[in-house]
This record gives sequence, structure tokens and C-alpha cells, in this order.
Amino acid sequence: METVDSEQLDWHKLRTVGGLDTNVLPVAVQDADTREMIMVAYLSREALAESARTGRAVFYSTSRHQLHRKGETSGDVLDVVRLSANCDLNSVLMEVRKQGTGACHERDPDGDHYTSCFFRELLPIGEDQGER
Amino acid sequence: METVDSEQLDWHKLRTVGGLDTNVLPVAVQDADTREMIMVAYLSREALAESARTGRAVFYSTSRHQLHRKGETSGDVLDVVRLSANCDLNSVLMEVRKQGTGACHERDPDGDHYTSCFFRELLPIGEDQGER
Repeated sequence: METVDSEQLDWHKLRTVGGLDTNVLPVAVQDADTREMIMVAYLSREALAESARTGRAVFYSTSRHQLHRKGETSGDVLDVVRLSANCDLNSVLMEVRKQGTGACHERDPDGDHYTSCFFRELLPIGEDQGER
Repeated sequence: METVDSEQLDWHKLRTVGGLDTNVLPVAVQDADTREMIMVAYLSREALAESARTGRAVFYSTSRHQLHRKGETSGDVLDVVRLSANCDLNSVLMEVRKQGTGACHERDPDGDHYTSCFFRELLPIGEDQGER
């Protein structure tokens, strides 16, 4: 498994997301069959409505500022099996069924798309300097 | 299962998170044994480092602006089994093992803490008006 340390993470991502014109919520995407966690993405109202209407996962791309119809180019469409909201109503769980075999845009050493975006082990580095 | 519709969601949450003094990343928390998705929370550098150092899940409370040592008051401590980072290095998967039986602060009709915060089915309402 590839590894990464905590200082390589993009700690500024949510500042960008928080400043978007479009309101979004984080969505945890889980494979309904294998229960593998596939990714964390973002939903706008439109992405959520289209996902529900079409039965296919549509996210809001926080970098391209537009809807991202998952699998439109890769073919790795995700069918929506169930949508749940958390206790505080500020995050979503989307359980999906893969039409293809992969889910991530990156490829494993065999050249296949990863089945989950979480293919790197995170090795935190010690910067536990107490609460700031 | 309780239900909620998309207009009841807190669509402004990430604006607040994006404006915090502390940089955070979303973390999807999954039960390593049952594979149930427990919650989406947030990690600061300090929360991540303390989680790794102590082996117990510590988050950053985006409402209280301080570390949240999970289970400190409820007893529902989550032991950290594995940490992964996604392809784009902007979200984290934390696989955990429950010390207690529950995980959410809310209780089910029997009075037990829910094992997952995603106990409400989300029924999106039709406001698919195309991309804005």
C-alpha cells in the first residue's frame, strides 16, 4: 500500500469549498455490496436532486465548479442504492452499486482503476503540540 | 427509519467550516468490524496526530472550536484501526473499533445510542433545475 504523511494532505481544501458560490455538503460514498468506503465527495442541491432522480451518482466538483456525473467519461457509473442523512443534518451517506469495476480516477500498479480512492495509508507525523 | 428531506439539511455548514481559524479535513469514520459507516467528522492536524498517538479517535469540533475526544463523556470511545488518505489527499478514512455499543449522541426508540449517525433516510425533493 502506498503511504502518505499528514503534511502532504491538502489542509486548505475546505477553505476553498467554504468560499464557493454554491452550497455543498460532504457525502461519504460506500459500496453497498462490499461495504468498501469509496470516496468523500460533495453534493449541491442540484447534484443531490439529479442523483435521486436518475438513480446515478452525481456530485458537485469543487474544483471545476460544476456537476460531476460520475462515470460520464470513465464509464465507472455508480448506481444509487440509498441516501441517508446524519444526526446533525450536515453530511450524507450514499450507498452505491458499481456498474464498472473501478471507482477512482487513479490506477493501481496493474493499470486498473482503484475500487476506492482511499488506497494510501496515512502515516501521521508527530505534531501533537496540544490544542491551538 | 426516520426520514428527512433535502431542504432540512444544513447547507451552510461548510461555509462555517471553511472560515474557521483551524484548518480541517473531512474524515469518514467506518466500523472496521461491521463495515458500517458511522459518521463524517473533521480532523485538524492536532486531532489527527493525537488520534494516531493515542490510538483513540479524536476529532475537531467545528461548532465548539476545540478537540473532541470521542467518548470522553459518553464512554463510546472509538479505537483507531487504520487511517487512509484519498487520491487527492483532501479527505481521510478512519477505520475504528467501538469500545462501547453506540457511536452517535442520539438515541434510538429503545433508548440506546445509535451505532451510526446515518439513521435517517434522505428523501431528496425535486429541485433539479439544472446546473446553476
